[in-house]
Amino acid sequence: MAANTWGELFRVTTFGESHGPAIGAIIDGCPPGLALSEADIQPFLDKRRPGQSRYTTARREADQVQILSGVFEGRTTGTPIGLLIHNTDQRSQDYGSIKDQFRPGHADYTYAHKYGERDYRGGGRSSARETAMRVAAGAVAQLYLAQRLGITFRAAVTQIGPHHADPTAASFDWQRVPNSPLFCGDSDCEAAAAEYLKQLLKEGDSVGARVRLEVLGVPVGLGEPVFDRLDADLAKALMSINAVKAVSIGDGFAVAAQRGSEHRDALTPAGFSSNHAGGVLGGIATGQPLIADVAFKPTSSITQPGSTIDKNGNACEIVTRGRHDPCVGIRGVPVVEAMAALVIMDHWLRHRAQNADVKHSLPTIG
Amino acid sequence: MAANTWGELFRVTTFGESHGPAIGAIIDGCPPGLALSEADIQPFLDKRRPGQSRYTTARREADQVQILSGVFEGRTTGTPIGLLIHNTDQRSQDYGSIKDQFRPGHADYTYAHKYGERDYRGGGRSSARETAMRVAAGAVAQLYLAQRLGITFRAAVTQIGPHHADPTAASFDWQRVPNSPLFCGDSDCEAAAAEYLKQLLKEGDSVGARVRLEVLGVPVGLGEPVFDRLDADLAKALMSINAVKAVSIGDGFAVAAQRGSEHRDALTPAGFSSNHAGGVLGGIATGQPLIADVAFKPTSSITQPGSTIDKNGNACEIVTRGRHDPCVGIRGVPVVEAMAALVIMDHWLRHRAQNADVKHSLPTIG
Amino acid sequence: MAANTWGELFRVTTFGESHGPAIGAIIDGCPPGLALSEADIQPFLDKRRPGQSRYTTARREADQVQILSGVFEGRTTGTPIGLLIHNTDQRSQDYGSIKDQFRPGHADYTYAHKYGERDYRGGGRSSARETAMRVAAGAVAQLYLAQRLGITFRAAVTQIGPHHADPTAASFDWQRVPNSPLFCGDSDCEAAAAEYLKQLLKEGDSVGARVRLEVLGVPVGLGEPVFDRLDADLAKALMSINAVKAVSIGDGFAVAAQRGSEHRDALTPAGFSSNHAGGVLGGIATGQPLIADVAFKPTSSITQPGSTIDKNGNACEIVTRGRHDPCVGIRGVPVVEAMAALVIMDHWLRHRAQNADVKHSLPTIG
Amino acid sequence: MAANTWGELFRVTTFGESHGPAIGAIIDGCPPGLALSEADIQPFLDKRRPGQSRYTTARREADQVQILSGVFEGRTTGTPIGLLIHNTDQRSQDYGSIKDQFRPGHADYTYAHKYGERDYRGGGRSSARETAMRVAAGAVAQLYLAQRLGITFRAAVTQIGPHHADPTAASFDWQRVPNSPLFCGDSDCEAAAAEYLKQLLKEGDSVGARVRLEVLGVPVGLGEPVFDRLDADLAKALMSINAVKAVSIGDGFAVAAQRGSEHRDALTPAGFSSNHAGGVLGGIATGQPLIADVAFKPTSSITQPGSTIDKNGNACEIVTRGRHDPCVGIRGVPVVEAMAALVIMDHWLRHRAQNADVKHSLPTIG
Repeated sequence: MAANTWGELFRVTTFGESHGPAIGAIIDGCPPGLALSEADIQPFLDKRRPGQSRYTTARREADQVQILSGVFEGRTTGTPIGLLIHNTDQRSQDYGSIKDQFRPGHADYTYAHKYGERDYRGGGRSSARETAMRVAAGAVAQLYLAQRLGITFRAAVTQIGPHHADPTAASFDWQRVPNSPLFCGDSDCEAAAAEYLKQLLKEGDSVGARVRLEVLGVPVGLGEPVFDRLDADLAKALMSINAVKAVSIGDGFAVAAQRGSEHRDALTPAGFSSNHAGGVLGGIATGQPLIADVAFKPTSSITQPGSTIDKNGNACEIVTRGRHDPCVGIRGVPVVEAMAALVIMDHWLRHRAQNADVKHSLPTIG
Repeated sequence: MAANTWGELFRVTTFGESHGPAIGAIIDGCPPGLALSEADIQPFLDKRRPGQSRYTTARREADQVQILSGVFEGRTTGTPIGLLIHNTDQRSQDYGSIKDQFRPGHADYTYAHKYGERDYRGGGRSSARETAMRVAAGAVAQLYLAQRLGITFRAAVTQIGPHHADPTAASFDWQRVPNSPLFCGDSDCEAAAAEYLKQLLKEGDSVGARVRLEVLGVPVGLGEPVFDRLDADLAKALMSINAVKAVSIGDGFAVAAQRGSEHRDALTPAGFSSNHAGGVLGGIATGQPLIADVAFKPTSSITQPGSTIDKNGNACEIVTRGRHDPCVGIRGVPVVEAMAALVIMDHWLRHRAQNADVKHSLPTIG
Repeated sequence: MAANTWGELFRVTTFGESHGPAIGAIIDGCPPGLALSEADIQPFLDKRRPGQSRYTTARREADQVQILSGVFEGRTTGTPIGLLIHNTDQRSQDYGSIKDQFRPGHADYTYAHKYGERDYRGGGRSSARETAMRVAAGAVAQLYLAQRLGITFRAAVTQIGPHHADPTAASFDWQRVPNSPLFCGDSDCEAAAAEYLKQLLKEGDSVGARVRLEVLGVPVGLGEPVFDRLDADLAKALMSINAVKAVSIGDGFAVAAQRGSEHRDALTPAGFSSNHAGGVLGGIATGQPLIADVAFKPTSSITQPGSTIDKNGNACEIVTRGRHDPCVGIRGVPVVEAMAALVIMDHWLRHRAQNADVKHSLPTIG
Repeated sequence: MAANTWGELFRVTTFGESHGPAIGAIIDGCPPGLALSEADIQPFLDKRRPGQSRYTTARREADQVQILSGVFEGRTTGTPIGLLIHNTDQRSQDYGSIKDQFRPGHADYTYAHKYGERDYRGGGRSSARETAMRVAAGAVAQLYLAQRLGITFRAAVTQIGPHHADPTAASFDWQRVPNSPLFCGDSDCEAAAAEYLKQLLKEGDSVGARVRLEVLGVPVGLGEPVFDRLDADLAKALMSINAVKAVSIGDGFAVAAQRGSEHRDALTPAGFSSNHAGGVLGGIATGQPLIADVAFKPTSSITQPGSTIDKNGNACEIVTRGRHDPCVGIRGVPVVEAMAALVIMDHWLRHRAQNADVKHSLPTIG
C-alpha cells in the first residue's frame, strides 16, 4: 500500500483536491466480467452527496461519476478502471486570511509543515471531498461482493452528542436507515438528534457521532495474519476516514472489563452462541456478522471564532466561513460502508490467491 | 505490506510457531551506522518474557535473541538484519483432544477453515509467542529513534477488569511503570488489580485490560495521507496485536459526545492549548505527544470448561490446560510500544524520502 | 508494485485503452516544491506523438495533457498528481472480423484467455497508446532529476533491420538525435534506414530496432540489492515497454565471451578506466554513465495477410488494416527515456530514505 | 517488492552475508497442503553447492537447509516458512589489505558509498553466497508448480568464452545437462570448454557464460500487464542474479533485424507455428515454452593483479586470493531456474486471485 492507494490486489488509488478541477480514482485488479456502468455506481455517491438534507453541507455537487476505462460492452475487462468526477461547485472565494492562518482542528498546520506547500482552498487534499472517490470505488467492490458472494454492508449513526441509539435493541430498525436524513435506525433518537442539530446550527457549533458497521455474509477464512488481520485492516481503513478517532471490533473497549468465561463465544453445532468477538478470531473471519464501531470527531469548521496562529507565528483569531456539516459523522456513513467493502474485497482476492486449492470437510457453523 | 511483513521502508517480516524449533524475523531497510548488539535488544525482550511474575504465564523461555546478519563490527550495515530466538521450552505434551476440537475464543476454527491445515500445538502461528519477534524488531526501531530523533515510547496498563488508573491524574507515575509487575502507574490500582487477579486464578478465569500508549518527541510532519495516515497505521499496528479489540486516538470514543468548540485544540505561539486530537491532525503528527488507547480481551485459555464442537461437528466440552496468563494485556504492554515504534520508524523513513528537500520558515509550536 | 503501478516511492499508476474516452495516470509521491505545469510536460509527449513523420503511424492525437491535481500555484504540493489525456482520434471503425479473430504477434489471444473479456478496439489496453502516460509521468521525473541532481537521459535508435549505428563511434552525434525523424545519431545510418523503411511500407511489412540508452550524472549509491538492484529494475522497466524483447547493461551479451582480466573496470584516482559494467556494480550505480541497450520487435500489424484462428478455433486469414508504424522502435525512444527516469527517480527516493544519515569521507571517482 | 523480498504473493525475503553465522529466508504466502521436507529442498541446493567440480570454487559448504516453521506433519500450513543454512566454512582469514581497498569489478566501492559501512569479509551481502537462499525458496516453488500444474524448469550453459552450444540443435541433449559438470547439453562444447577453463585456471583468469532457460507447461494467461508483464518480471528476476548483464526473451536482440512478416508467430488449430515470441505476447504467457537467455560476466576475483584505489583515494594494486569459480555462469544455472520458478509461482497466485471466476470456451492451442 502507498499513501494514496488502498489494497494489495483490489487496489484503489485516488487523487484530487477540494477545489481543483476534478477528483478521480483508478481501480486496479477488479475481476473481469462484472456488469458495471456509471448508473450502478451513482446511487452510492448520491447517498454521500452534500446538500441532501439541512444537516449536511449546502455545497451542491452533482458528483456525476464517469468511467474512463476498464469497462467494455457493459462488463469489466480486468484492466484498470479509471473514474472521474468533475468539481462543479468551486466557488471563487476570498481565502485571504485563511491562506496565512492555521485553522484549529484542521490539517493546515500539519500539511504546511510536512510538505512546505499547502493548497489552502477548502482544505485541499485534506478535505473530506476526497472520500467521494472512496465511495465510488467501494461501490464497485460492493457490487461484486453482493453478486458473487452475497456479502452485504450496512452502517448507521448510533450516537450524536448526547443522543444514542442501540443497534441491538428491538426499537432499532435497519430498514429505516437508508431513508433517514441522519442515517439513524431509531426514530426517537433521530428526532431528538435533529432538534439538537438545529440548536447547534444556531449556535454555530458542531458535534461528534458514533457509527455502527455490520457486514453480513462474510465467509469464514478471510484475513491474513499476523499483520494483515481482517480486523487490523478494517481498523486502518476506518481510521483513515477523515475525522475518525476510534475504532472497535465486537465488544470493543468493553472487553477490558470482561472475564474470559464471559467473553469467549461458544461454538455449537447450530452456530456460535454469541458474537462478542465481532466476527473475527485470530484476525480471520468466523463467518458471523462482522461488527465494528467508529467515532467521528465534531467538524472543526464552525462559525464560532477560534484562537490560532498565522504563518509568522503570531496569535490571531479565525472564523471559518463557508458551507459545513454540523456533524460530519452523518455523511461518514456511506464512507464507512465503502471502506469496509474495499477491505473485504481485497481480502477475498488475497484469500483465494493462497487458498484456492484448500479442500476439507470441516463443519461450517457460520 | 504482506501478511507477515510490517512496513514499507523499515520492513519487518516474521516467522515461527509456538512449538516449532525457533521464531525469527528479518528487518529490511534499517539505516546503516546504528550501533547494535544482541545486548541492546535483550532488555526489550526480557520485559515481555513470560515467567516474570505470578500474573503471567509460567512458561519459561530464555528468549535469547541472536543477530545473524546485517551487523558488522557493532554497527548496522544497511543489509537485512536476521534475528532468531530458539524455542527452548516446548514441552512435549498430549494434545490428543485439543487436536480435534476448536477452542472457543481461539483461532483454531478460523485457521482450520482458512488453510485446511492447523498446527494445533499451543496455537501454532496464532500464539502470542509470535509477538516476541515484534518486540525484538521494535527494539531496533526504538534504539534508532531515541538516538537519532529523541523519540521515546511508553505504555502502561490503565484498566484490569473493574480497576482503573487514570494516566492523566497526578497519582499516575510513569516512572514506576517499568518496575510494576502489572505495568501500572498507579499503586492503588495495581494493588487492587493484583488482588483481583489472584482471585481470578483461583477461579480459573481471566480478564481483559486497557493499555495507554504515549509517544513523546514525534516531529511534526510524520504521516502519509490519505490512506497511510499516522493514526490509521497506528490503528492497524495495534489492532494486529493478539487479543486487541479496540484502538482509539486522543479523546477516542468520547469525541462522539463533544462539540467542535470543545474538541478543536487551539494553536498559540506557546504551543497547542490542549491535545484532544492525540497528536494527529489530518493523519499527520502535530508534534504533540501521540496518545492512543487499546483494549485487550481476556485470555480465552482458562481452566473453566467450555462448550465447543469437534472437527466432525459434534458438540463437546473442552478444558484448556497449560500455562496461560490470566490477563494477556499485561504482557501486551511492550508489544504495544514495539508496534508503535515500527510505525513511527517506517513513517520517518517515508517522510524523509519524499520531503527531504522541504525548506520553510513556518513556526513550530510542538 | 502492482500490475499498473510503477515504483515504490515515486509511484505511477496508469489507466486507459486505445479507443476509450481518455487515458490517465496518477503520480503518488512526487516531492513537493517542484515547478510544474502542463507546458513543462507537453514537449516530452510531443516527442512520442504519432504523426510526427512518415515513419510513424498516421494516427493524429493532440495528446494534450491536463494536470488535475497535486499542483498549486505552479508547484507540486506533495499530493497525488492526476494526469489526463483525452483520446481525440478514435475513428469509429468496423472491427467486425478482428473482433472474433486473434491477430498473430498481438496480445489478442493472451488477453482473451486471461480475462475472458477483450476490448478488441485497437488492441484495447495492450495498445502502445498506453505508453503516452509513461512519457507524461517520466517527464515529471526527468524535470525533477535534471533540476535537483543534474541527471539527464538520452536514447537513440542504433539499429533498424540491417542498418546499424555505433553510439561509441566518432560519427555518432547525440546532438542530432532529437531532430532526427528516426532518432538516429548517425546520418549515414539514418539515410539508409529511411530508404529501407520506405521499401517496407510499400511491401506492407515492418522491422525491428535496437535502442541505446544513456543516463548521465547518476550519483554513486543508487540501487537496492539484492532483488531491487538498479540494473534489475531497469531491466524490468525496459522489458515492460510494448514490443521490447531484450535488455542488456554495459557490454551485455558480449560478456559471455570476455575474460575477467578484460571485463573488470579498473579504479584509478582519476576515475574508472573503462565502463564495461555500464555504470552498475553489485546492483548499485558507480557514478559512471548508465548504459543499456534494448531490442524492439517489428510491428505485428502489417498489411500482409497472416494466418490465425478465430474464437471458435477455426483457421482463418487476417489482414490488419489501420494506421501503424513500420518500426515501433522509433517511437519507443522517448518511452525508453521515460521508463529509465521513473527507475532513477524511485531509486533516488528509496536511497535517501534509508541512507540520508550516511556520512563518510570516501573518494568519489564518478 | 522490497530490496530483499521477491514477489507479491509468494514472497521470499532473504538475509545473510558470506561470512556471517548463517543465511536464511522466509517464504510468506506458500499455499497450504504442499508436502514438504528438508529432503525435498536439499537436492536443489546440492546442484548449486560449491565444490562439486574442479570448475567451481573449492569452498566446501554442506549447505544443509533447516525448515524452522510453516510445515507441520509434513505439509505446509500456509504460515511463513523459515529456512536457515549455517555457514560452516568461514575461514578466518587476513582481510588486511582488502579491507581498505575496492576490488575492481566487485561491489566494494558501491556498497561503501551507499551505506557508509561495508562487511568486507568475502563480499558480505554482495557475495553470490546469497543465491543459495534463492535456490532453496525456488525449490519450494518448483515442487508446487510441478505437482499442481505440471510446470517444469530447465536451464543449461550454452556459451563459455569462445565455445558455444546451440540449444535448438539436434546435438543438444537436455537429458545430459544435470549430470554435466558444466551444465552443458552438448558434449563437444563441454569438452572444449573444459579444456579452456583448465587453461584459464592456470592463467589465473576467468570467463563469462551464456545460459538458456526454458519453462515448459506454463498455462496461457500468466502475466500482469502493463508493468508486471511476465517477461518484465522475468527480466528483473534474472538480472537480479549476481553477475548477470543481459536478458532476452525468445529471439531476443535478433528481433532488431527481423521483419514483421517473419517474426509474428502464426496461430493454427494445431498450435503456434513457431515461437519467436518466446512464449509471451503482450506480457502474458501464450502457453508455449517460455524461452530466455542470460549472460553472466566473468568472475572479477582472479589471481591476476588489478589496479584500484584504496579508501583514501590512492592508487594501489590488488590481488584477490581465496577460492573462486573461473566461470560463475556455471553455478548460476540452478539460480536461473530458481528465479524463474519464483516468478511463475508468484504470477500463478496473482493470476488466480483476479481471474479465478473467468469462464470461457475459447480454443487453447498451447
